[in-house]
Amino acid sequence: MPYKPGLHIISEFTSTEQHLLASSQHFRQLLDTTITAHNLQKVGEVYHDFDGGGFTAVVCLTESHISIHTWPEFELATFDVFLSNYQHENDHKARAIYSAVIEFYGGAELQKNEIKR
Amino acid sequence: MPYKPGLHIISEFTSTEQHLLASSQHFRQLLDTTITAHNLQKVGEVYHDFDGGGFTAVVCLTESHISIHTWPEFELATFDVFLSNYQHENDHKARAIYSAVIEFYGGAELQKNEIKR
Repeated sequence: MPYKPGLHIISEFTSTEQHLLASSQHFRQLLDTTITAHNLQKVGEVYHDFDGGGFTAVVCLTESHISIHTWPEFELATFDVFLSNYQHENDHKARAIYSAVIEFYGGAELQKNEIKR
Repeated sequence: MPYKPGLHIISEFTSTEQHLLASSQHFRQLLDTTITAHNLQKVGEVYHDFDGGGFTAVVCLTESHISIHTWPEFELATFDVFLSNYQHENDHKARAIYSAVIEFYGGAELQKNEIKR
């Protein structure tokens, strides 16, 4: 059987927590805590806060990546978590991280796809 | 109509160009050239080459992100390009970047999804 990298969850959600969408600070704390809790390994990250509100963040892991883009003016965010299964089966961790982010934002899903890559 | 962020192309492909999968150097040159050619704006990037071969790269743009993860030992890569339409309609640029990457690798698609986010 050919190697299958893993599960990618890809979502858009709305949130009325505009301060959590406006700046990356609190999301960064959440994500760092969550990454540590799941024994995942960061290899690099980008956090970029836009003038006027909203941010982009990508965290690269040995197990692929997590990304978010926010539009506080539309109470909207896109979120991705893609964890490869190279050394461990990580689908449950991808789902747990996704749930933690939705809960953090009190998010209402507009669209969610799970792609087995 | 609610705001729709844009087009996300998400793909896995195989390539026999193992040296292009093993190290990020040539991909980085391709991507920098392509980003400039399409008048896109970088806000940060991560390039991480793994010991033993393979790399992870994410480039954050004002228009979202581009990511790649490679497994040269399986002649395999996952590639994503997500361009938001915040100030311009960018779907054609997402497709052009995707095509440039597939061509660069002489890639054979295993799976490709286009998600309108």
